[in-house]
Amino acid sequence: MTQTAYRLADIAARFGGRLLGDPEVRVQQIATLDSAQPQHISFLSNSKYRAQLAATQAGAVILGEPDADATALPRIVCDNPYAYFARVSALLNPESKAVPGIHASAVIGEGAQVDPSAHIAAHVVIGAGAVIGAGSIVMAGCSVGDRTVIGENARLYPRVVVYHDCIIGNNLIVHSGAVIGADGFGMAMEDGRWLKIPQIGRVVIGDDVEIGANTTIDRGALSDTVIEDGVKLDNQIQIAHNVRVGAHTAIAGCAGVAGSAVIGRYCRIGGSANILGHLQIADHVEISIGSLITKSIREPGTYTAIYPFSSNAEWRRNAPYLRHLDELANKIKILQHEIEALKGK
Amino acid sequence: MTQTAYRLADIAARFGGRLLGDPEVRVQQIATLDSAQPQHISFLSNSKYRAQLAATQAGAVILGEPDADATALPRIVCDNPYAYFARVSALLNPESKAVPGIHASAVIGEGAQVDPSAHIAAHVVIGAGAVIGAGSIVMAGCSVGDRTVIGENARLYPRVVVYHDCIIGNNLIVHSGAVIGADGFGMAMEDGRWLKIPQIGRVVIGDDVEIGANTTIDRGALSDTVIEDGVKLDNQIQIAHNVRVGAHTAIAGCAGVAGSAVIGRYCRIGGSANILGHLQIADHVEISIGSLITKSIREPGTYTAIYPFSSNAEWRRNAPYLRHLDELANKIKILQHEIEALKGK
Amino acid sequence: MTQTAYRLADIAARFGGRLLGDPEVRVQQIATLDSAQPQHISFLSNSKYRAQLAATQAGAVILGEPDADATALPRIVCDNPYAYFARVSALLNPESKAVPGIHASAVIGEGAQVDPSAHIAAHVVIGAGAVIGAGSIVMAGCSVGDRTVIGENARLYPRVVVYHDCIIGNNLIVHSGAVIGADGFGMAMEDGRWLKIPQIGRVVIGDDVEIGANTTIDRGALSDTVIEDGVKLDNQIQIAHNVRVGAHTAIAGCAGVAGSAVIGRYCRIGGSANILGHLQIADHVEISIGSLITKSIREPGTYTAIYPFSSNAEWRRNAPYLRHLDELANKIKILQHEIEALKGK
Repeated sequence: MTQTAYRLADIAARFGGRLLGDPEVRVQQIATLDSAQPQHISFLSNSKYRAQLAATQAGAVILGEPDADATALPRIVCDNPYAYFARVSALLNPESKAVPGIHASAVIGEGAQVDPSAHIAAHVVIGAGAVIGAGSIVMAGCSVGDRTVIGENARLYPRVVVYHDCIIGNNLIVHSGAVIGADGFGMAMEDGRWLKIPQIGRVVIGDDVEIGANTTIDRGALSDTVIEDGVKLDNQIQIAHNVRVGAHTAIAGCAGVAGSAVIGRYCRIGGSANILGHLQIADHVEISIGSLITKSIREPGTYTAIYPFSSNAEWRRNAPYLRHLDELANKIKILQHEIEALKGK
Repeated sequence: MTQTAYRLADIAARFGGRLLGDPEVRVQQIATLDSAQPQHISFLSNSKYRAQLAATQAGAVILGEPDADATALPRIVCDNPYAYFARVSALLNPESKAVPGIHASAVIGEGAQVDPSAHIAAHVVIGAGAVIGAGSIVMAGCSVGDRTVIGENARLYPRVVVYHDCIIGNNLIVHSGAVIGADGFGMAMEDGRWLKIPQIGRVVIGDDVEIGANTTIDRGALSDTVIEDGVKLDNQIQIAHNVRVGAHTAIAGCAGVAGSAVIGRYCRIGGSANILGHLQIADHVEISIGSLITKSIREPGTYTAIYPFSSNAEWRRNAPYLRHLDELANKIKILQHEIEALKGK
Repeated sequence: MTQTAYRLADIAARFGGRLLGDPEVRVQQIATLDSAQPQHISFLSNSKYRAQLAATQAGAVILGEPDADATALPRIVCDNPYAYFARVSALLNPESKAVPGIHASAVIGEGAQVDPSAHIAAHVVIGAGAVIGAGSIVMAGCSVGDRTVIGENARLYPRVVVYHDCIIGNNLIVHSGAVIGADGFGMAMEDGRWLKIPQIGRVVIGDDVEIGANTTIDRGALSDTVIEDGVKLDNQIQIAHNVRVGAHTAIAGCAGVAGSAVIGRYCRIGGSANILGHLQIADHVEISIGSLITKSIREPGTYTAIYPFSSNAEWRRNAPYLRHLDELANKIKILQHEIEALKGK
């Protein structure tokens, strides 16, 4: 793939910022400061790495006002260099557009509406009455269930499954192996047997959502599971039935959200974190990697439950006390009383 | 989809219970107390939510004897309202039946036996000598390995993979992306290289088992991995080689069971819990969410290993002591001796 | 499947070791000591199970020098009985070879090079310009992206997805549902919206790598994600963007490695363990099951962070103190001062 080259002046005209140095410099790809070559534009998003500017071979650099004079390279100075880098990278690495058409091997259900501008790849199955919006790309081997509606400019990577009756907004990105709309885990015990509870809710997904590889989002039991606008889910996340994830919340890989939990807007949930069912998590809550949240969180802030690792030998000396903390506390109480008694003598 | 409506009298005739109020009321869907409309039947499975009965707009309600008189709505009074709800919901929301036939794009291996009443959807591959039982539905893009036998009334959602030589009973439900029968993780180190140990066991699954989306069940190394009757597995569970899961045990999402562990009957394993290899877990054991079980459990009961979360600031003040519990305990011991010495003065 | 039988003498001639007893004994399958029948060869890899030799019905046994005389059965005595077992099992259970050819339903992109000796199964999609090496088997429903190169003797089980522009060595085994090369989780926040950062790196995988079912390995953000030679990954592992996993490291099921972490050679990472982003883990490090590693590890050894489980009642008595360890430590300090004061009296 040959990359289109852009003049620094073109980039600044498009995305703003203050251009210093030669505006005619051309860049065709983005790279880190230490790997960049003259045809690359690089970026400094954290002043503490400023020293790397000295050695970089980048043709140009994106940086913030505090670092505006930290290099003599052609540069764009802006408020949010990391976001600016994202925009420049998207310009230099545009996503392929949908090539309109339906592959001969795809199977389109009765009454399905595939927009003429959409691309349906080989071995895809689109269910009866399903809708695929304009500009959407459904890659090889995906399966979209009956009556499911997918908006415009969606991008379903190979082997994504969306079950029936789900509603998805515009600009969805779903990576391979993700499963949207499978049955929630609902059953009732009767006479020593589990009875399945039909999962008749849907999954409803807003605009601008990205879903990682092999992530699963279950349909609701009676009402819907809801993923609001701008939510970003990494790989292998499990979202159980009737969960609601608030707008612009980001969840890292392997996290799990149990049934009917409600997560606020602009939360950041760390990888492998777990949230118990039926909890409420406020907006702007950050949950640390690997932490299990067992009660609702009403206040913004960072919450953590990480058992600190150590050498196995040190762990072996310490961990057994975790079953005897109550005794330790009790011994301290007794000692306090005894010292009071001694002092009173 | 238009829903069939049922008279309350029909429902009570079918499933039992004591009918109070107008038996001619018709309901066509189930709903929660707070979202139900007059065409809905709702349920109260926990008396502590009894207050919701006052405001519900449901046409009828299912409830237990203690709540029999807590509403004047048409109602069915029964012993186990949650199970009754499951039964009514299954009546109102019947699973689609198999439409007999094999899609033209499906590939059926030599000597495979697909029952004439089964449905094989588009892009499915059935291996040589495999067997698909009566009434089973194999949805789009599934792959069933050579010589694998699947019983009657199975329901394989799109993109399920079952490897070769597995044996599966009746009424199986498997959600998309699940993988049954992949190689267990077995290898031997020799001269700095891992040698693969062929995994020649099978996966053997009983009747009435449900397996969630993207769950993986590995085949046995030498003998079989066994999932007994009535086991319910949620999404993204990992069952390693040679595990046995006892009948009617339910395991929630993202849990992992390491190799050769044997789990009893009627256990309930919480989400993201992990069970070490080669352990034995008794019948009727409940394991809390996120808990790691490192020793065999011989007695029924609930077992837990949850590190309580707190604000990050509080965690930072406390967590470092986890590496020094032995010192704290030792200091207490010294204090005890010193006080004894002081008292002896 | 009829198994070929091998004389013990043939096996010893092939793999070495000291043959004791009848060299003409024929074995056709491998089995554990307690399940073996006369047509089986079994093995004793740990002397502590030596007592099982007395009751085994195996036709022959593989064992180490210390156990050479612990049975009168025909036997092969060797240095590493477990590795020897792996070699004998591979002899008795050879993987099927590729049947050259491309299934009529497979879709091969423009300019793709599929070696004539490779097997491409039904409903596979091979992208434009991709390369599939000699003897490789791509099973049903796999998707290989544009320009991706896969070496010789690869074995992709059904429904594997490899995205575009990845580079994979020889002898790869990938189990079903694995996803290689999906986008890493990279984005920048700007004005309350997440901007996607294009993931323009690749996944580069060495020789002799095995990847478990539903494992995900993300492509790099700017540079590559790298899996070195001989790495073995179990099921449902998440490898984030720009991670490097050193040669011959083995990672058990459900583990997660966050972005840009660098793991050394010959490490062993336990199931459900997690490694934070940007860490460095030395060679020959062992991480216990379920442990979260939050700092770089510079020295070989075993590292652990396991909260010991207990009965729920015991846990309820002890866990609350975890939020008050600082207070306990402080009380001890006060007691120490008071005792010093009392002693000074």
